Amino acid sequence: MRVEELETPVPVVDLDVMERNLKRMQDYCDAHGIALRPHIKTHKLPRLAQRQVELGAKGITCQKLGEAEVMADAGLDDIFISYPLIGEAKAHRLAALAKRVRMRVAVDNPLALATAAQAARESGAEIGVVVEFDSGNKRTGVETVGEALALAKEIAATPGLRFDGLMTYPTSARTKTFLEEARPAFREAGLEIPMLSGGGSPGAWTVHEVAPIDEMRVGTYIYNDRAMVGAGAATLDDCAMTVWATVISRPAEGRAILDCGSKTLSSDMVAPEVGPGYGLMPDYPDAVITRVNEEHGTVDVSRCAKKPELGERVRIIPNHTCVVTNLHDEVVFARDGEVVGSWPIPARGMTR
Amino acid sequence: MRVEELETPVPVVDLDVMERNLKRMQDYCDAHGIALRPHIKTHKLPRLAQRQVELGAKGITCQKLGEAEVMADAGLDDIFISYPLIGEAKAHRLAALAKRVRMRVAVDNPLALATAAQAARESGAEIGVVVEFDSGNKRTGVETVGEALALAKEIAATPGLRFDGLMTYPTSARTKTFLEEARPAFREAGLEIPMLSGGGSPGAWTVHEVAPIDEMRVGTYIYNDRAMVGAGAATLDDCAMTVWATVISRPAEGRAILDCGSKTLSSDMVAPEVGPGYGLMPDYPDAVITRVNEEHGTVDVSRCAKKPELGERVRIIPNHTCVVTNLHDEVVFARDGEVVGSWPIPARGMTR
Repeated sequence: MRVEELETPVPVVDLDVMERNLKRMQDYCDAHGIALRPHIKTHKLPRLAQRQVELGAKGITCQKLGEAEVMADAGLDDIFISYPLIGEAKAHRLAALAKRVRMRVAVDNPLALATAAQAARESGAEIGVVVEFDSGNKRTGVETVGEALALAKEIAATPGLRFDGLMTYPTSARTKTFLEEARPAFREAGLEIPMLSGGGSPGAWTVHEVAPIDEMRVGTYIYNDRAMVGAGAATLDDCAMTVWATVISRPAEGRAILDCGSKTLSSDMVAPEVGPGYGLMPDYPDAVITRVNEEHGTVDVSRCAKKPELGERVRIIPNHTCVVTNLHDEVVFARDGEVVGSWPIPARGMTR
Repeated sequence: MRVEELETPVPVVDLDVMERNLKRMQDYCDAHGIALRPHIKTHKLPRLAQRQVELGAKGITCQKLGEAEVMADAGLDDIFISYPLIGEAKAHRLAALAKRVRMRVAVDNPLALATAAQAARESGAEIGVVVEFDSGNKRTGVETVGEALALAKEIAATPGLRFDGLMTYPTSARTKTFLEEARPAFREAGLEIPMLSGGGSPGAWTVHEVAPIDEMRVGTYIYNDRAMVGAGAATLDDCAMTVWATVISRPAEGRAILDCGSKTLSSDMVAPEVGPGYGLMPDYPDAVITRVNEEHGTVDVSRCAKKPELGERVRIIPNHTCVVTNLHDEVVFARDGEVVGSWPIPARGMTR
């Protein structure tokens, strides 16, 4: 079956483009002596995580325990949860994971550290812990070397925990200066920093010029999306995921309605300088998806010389491919426009 | 178990508030002689659709065939798909549904009409068809009485199809003037308009003053959300769905990070005049959820006199409850803060 014959709306991933993306990132990391630890949030598919490891990835990254559990069930055995886990329930689940696979977690506060410590006690397994610092993103991560050092000391002093180094997201100039400040301070306290983990697909290709990271956590590079193209980190030809949709209404000359809305594309936008709308229609570069409701995409086609017709199948490059994956129970894989198969996405919806 | 002990993030629905919302809408419709045909998009749960019918609803509304199939499987037997269905695959699925339950669809163009006609032929069952017109929303729906009449004539002339009337979304002043224009034009063509179907929870309570609708399609009223409160159609006490989250990081004095982001709350905003941010924290009215990434909610707590602490459980009223439902495989129901059960959501993710 050809992809354009699929019932819509449907996300379709081109396997050749995906494979090229995978290899390119592995090659980049190999060339620069960086360990690749891909983030599975983009595909949420064990078989693709396995493919990443096969190509040379040193373990994988997950954001939530639920994702890690799915991956461990599928045989992935070296998992980093780059996220502060807090509370009894999380400790139990982390312990269960640590009993069967090599686990590492990130902390930026004492409660997350205590959760990891409890998991180590319960499991009897050693758990790696990295300290997250903020490189300017203003999300999680300690802001000072002093805070990082205090946590690192406590990790090193806690039975069952192993201080694995520092992490940040995304990698920036501040990553380098933070490390430069941290090295002597840690050394003075008798601690080495075994590793620096950086992340972020948009800046991946120039990371060797930015900061001396030892490990790269990237997710989006496997499929790419409009935001990645906007960041200059990919071209449209590198976008492996396309959403196919149908024009289900043409109620006015300048308006087309697609059968995909926020339940398919999400309501994520891209940075204003990248462009307007909720996705890019490569065959209609002058069309703008101006609004998404749950099941409707409203497209302003007034500036299109040739306009999409009622009933026509159209392609959309999503703004943000990871969230499209999360919205779907399965994804279609294709090669040269021919459908290879439709695979369930076992790690979708794992918010806990 | 108390709801505050649940592992987070987790959407929780208060059954008493929900039941009150259900009854109030049914009472309103009864008082004004309007048939209630609730939209299941908000809950996506057959058992709640059944409850709505039990309370007096005359059938249900779905947006996609996949939702209708789940509902039909559960015994719901009068289903309106208020959405243009186009193409062979949709026709086959509509035919299969029409063989076992009473089906009605909406059309605003000849291809959707042809799809309904094909389904009627294939199934041998009569399918009700309404013509959608635009009351100013600028999404689907014909813009002129002439177009509506042309479609209605074709419906009436097509074997297996039954012209059921007109529909629009949402109900507005234009709904009334369109009907006033349409009645004589249709009559002249030998057609009565059997029914006018209007919709939209935000304007539901005043619809009797706005336009003489015969049927009301509303979804959000069952749970309510911040957008409904903003529209004046509900109070915070009427919001049956709450998302419980945990403060997983407090990296700076003015910043708290929650373990819920766009994978839990979606990235849907409310109208600027309703307020900023990606949800409302009722216990911290001065907090603003300024950013959501997939798994992080960044909260500006700088203006809070008392600030949420690391590890604290917090409540969030989502901006848009329907999309929260769609993001989750299951939802917890509670009464007086005590967990009643966690139910899978079988019609979530039904984009086709």
